[in-house]
Amino acid sequence: MKNFININDIKDYNKSVEDCISLKKSPYELNSLGKNKTLGLLFFNPSLRTRISTEKAAKILGMNVISMNFNNEGWNLECEDGVIMNSNKAEHIKDAARVVGQYCDIIGIRSFPSLINKTDDEKDIVINSFKKYANIPVINLESSIYHPLQALADAVTIKEKVKKPKIVLSWAPHIKPLPHAVANSFINMAKKMNYDIKITNPIGYNLNENITDGIEIINNQKEAFEGANLVYAKNWSSYDNYGKVLDIKDSWIIDDDKMNITNNAKFMHCLPVRRNLVVSDSVIDSDNSLVVEQANNRVYSAQLILKNILNEI
Amino acid sequence: MKNFININDIKDYNKSVEDCISLKKSPYELNSLGKNKTLGLLFFNPSLRTRISTEKAAKILGMNVISMNFNNEGWNLECEDGVIMNSNKAEHIKDAARVVGQYCDIIGIRSFPSLINKTDDEKDIVINSFKKYANIPVINLESSIYHPLQALADAVTIKEKVKKPKIVLSWAPHIKPLPHAVANSFINMAKKMNYDIKITNPIGYNLNENITDGIEIINNQKEAFEGANLVYAKNWSSYDNYGKVLDIKDSWIIDDDKMNITNNAKFMHCLPVRRNLVVSDSVIDSDNSLVVEQANNRVYSAQLILKNILNEI
Amino acid sequence: MKNFININDIKDYNKSVEDCISLKKSPYELNSLGKNKTLGLLFFNPSLRTRISTEKAAKILGMNVISMNFNNEGWNLECEDGVIMNSNKAEHIKDAARVVGQYCDIIGIRSFPSLINKTDDEKDIVINSFKKYANIPVINLESSIYHPLQALADAVTIKEKVKKPKIVLSWAPHIKPLPHAVANSFINMAKKMNYDIKITNPIGYNLNENITDGIEIINNQKEAFEGANLVYAKNWSSYDNYGKVLDIKDSWIIDDDKMNITNNAKFMHCLPVRRNLVVSDSVIDSDNSLVVEQANNRVYSAQLILKNILNEI
Repeated sequence: MKNFININDIKDYNKSVEDCISLKKSPYELNSLGKNKTLGLLFFNPSLRTRISTEKAAKILGMNVISMNFNNEGWNLECEDGVIMNSNKAEHIKDAARVVGQYCDIIGIRSFPSLINKTDDEKDIVINSFKKYANIPVINLESSIYHPLQALADAVTIKEKVKKPKIVLSWAPHIKPLPHAVANSFINMAKKMNYDIKITNPIGYNLNENITDGIEIINNQKEAFEGANLVYAKNWSSYDNYGKVLDIKDSWIIDDDKMNITNNAKFMHCLPVRRNLVVSDSVIDSDNSLVVEQANNRVYSAQLILKNILNEI
Repeated sequence: MKNFININDIKDYNKSVEDCISLKKSPYELNSLGKNKTLGLLFFNPSLRTRISTEKAAKILGMNVISMNFNNEGWNLECEDGVIMNSNKAEHIKDAARVVGQYCDIIGIRSFPSLINKTDDEKDIVINSFKKYANIPVINLESSIYHPLQALADAVTIKEKVKKPKIVLSWAPHIKPLPHAVANSFINMAKKMNYDIKITNPIGYNLNENITDGIEIINNQKEAFEGANLVYAKNWSSYDNYGKVLDIKDSWIIDDDKMNITNNAKFMHCLPVRRNLVVSDSVIDSDNSLVVEQANNRVYSAQLILKNILNEI
Repeated sequence: MKNFININDIKDYNKSVEDCISLKKSPYELNSLGKNKTLGLLFFNPSLRTRISTEKAAKILGMNVISMNFNNEGWNLECEDGVIMNSNKAEHIKDAARVVGQYCDIIGIRSFPSLINKTDDEKDIVINSFKKYANIPVINLESSIYHPLQALADAVTIKEKVKKPKIVLSWAPHIKPLPHAVANSFINMAKKMNYDIKITNPIGYNLNENITDGIEIINNQKEAFEGANLVYAKNWSSYDNYGKVLDIKDSWIIDDDKMNITNNAKFMHCLPVRRNLVVSDSVIDSDNSLVVEQANNRVYSAQLILKNILNEI
């Protein structure tokens, strides 16, 4: 594996899911594979699960890890080519990428979208600039449009916990505009795994149709929940009315009443989650909730990706 | 040892003090005890001594250490149960604790009090939530009401430097409202060690009487200093008039004039200290000052606690 | 080597440059030299290259590294002696230095100048206080007036890439007042290496004459570029009109027209650089640009300094 920018960088997805499950049984066996190799983790946004799980995964492979919160520890980066740099951005991303690419053997990048300019966000310019200029493997720690490490951990969780998944990906309420990356990568993963999946979201909240292509979108949440054995909850801001939080009349919270419509469905969410807004305490704290196991699998999905990249450098 | 939340988590305190002193002689001997074990250090407040000494202690035990400044690197945590999370707090502490508990083998938590709501502060909700939900050992890096690693380092310092201690814990001036944690844990430690201890503070500054119970409190600082061979200085805000800085007429700075009243007393302070406000340069820079050695002993107190916990996991 | 505060701490500079070049060929051979040794990296200002290259250098020597961003992770430091500490500065630098000096075996310090008070800046009080009070070796990660690790990496780059260097150090435009440290250390290095060097800067921008003593300063940039085979670009604020950005009529950007005047000169800059303000894209992206290799050599210059210090402790 050369990079892990999106799901297509994994050739045999099903096998990778199985490999994660194997790795989970003996995570400390490969503790010299990463010897004398440096992983740089560059965060342009907050991170809890990704930060700790990726750092842990790298360290138990024997790597040196250097984490950096770019916004307050480094310099603001200019991403546009050819401009006269007389703004508050003191370094060009191509220079930062070339430099870090020399210091590290692998780089992980987290960079969220603006949710203001769709065209720019879809270029995923921060991670793609590092890919273009750093000359070393790049791992996506959640970019503007994809979160493939989360999707891989989700796939592992489903494989372990849900037989014959009948999935509904459900939009849920939030007070702030959130990115589409988790939903996009989840859908891409479900397609790779040939899972039975439906999406339910309010009118105006359809995701990018290049991604949802071929998947039924149901605007009635309760109808969508019927027969499902797995509910994956996530908020996202409007894609058509880009980055906006629309006024929704119905209640879209995932609570017991709605879960009771399902076929005793498991509940998943990538976290962080706003309780009693996105999902009721009763659902997320029930025995059917897989959110903690999902987070746990972040370590093994990161470890597998790092292992596969280390094997080729 | 399962957790180190407060002093009562140590069964034989005197023996632990002796163990720290032993460890100090050969700190690098146990450098594989922590192999493949991860310590997560979560800071909700600034830290210098605790941050570096604990990280060092863990690394010389062979542990992997992942430090995180929660407030700017992660998400604001909601601590109240059952609320609709539509404020600026994006994650519930029970979810954060469960997740981090899976990634780490031991967690250290620093979380200061609000000094606004006494009832809430005394619940020590951040560290106790991690204890409740993380399912792994938790170490207190200074909570709302206790700082037991500091107290253990203080006990080591006293054992090494003061024969037959006759201690006065003296309130000293400050311009900001400070927590009671250091003073509380120091008193608890002195009781465990059966030390001769008095407290001196201005009227209105008595600490929680559950903690000071059985200890003489003298409102005249000079009277209290008579005959002491150890002065432990610390500011704290009012406990009765919770979190307030009261107007005090007398001078409470610890200077040569006051130290001259004592029986050639040693001087201790946990640092950071505001010089010439809390204590004069002449006192803190004198040969009788133990502040640097106190800070040094933070490494060995942290190392002992980590060692004892590692031995049981 | 006891400390690395400025260039004079290296006895045989030419040999050190050669040693860096040797080290670069097999950087992983000394990976137990730093065992059980702790490097503390204290940043009072942002850092990308210095942060990652120094941390990497230390880790491949087997050291434990603890990085701290002092301003937001610790306490504001008081540097003046004898004051009553009732401002927003909660800890005196002498106490912080003594404490950190006990926890670490080597400390690296980055602390930029105020560019407001020349006398204070030239005392280089932060790094010199750590040198005075920490009682362990101190490495300069860019202080108010010197950046010797950068200069050493520059020397390595020149040795590798430019035969018979004929150097012009050229001031270049910027929108903010920048420090003099890089230029100062570059000049000191060029003198040590007996390089043929000229300086070109606008009137009003002469550097400290104690440093430029003996070097020709030319106020006409094009004239200065004639015959040069190496252009080292750097902005600095006025030294005489301390810390000010003066109004300059001519264009001082380094572009193709100006580089065409030279003898096919290589281009160097320490980064971060504002493209198309300091230097045109065409120059920095040309085959003659050494900026990426310069940054790469930061690892080996840091590694050599650490190695030399480790050999003596």
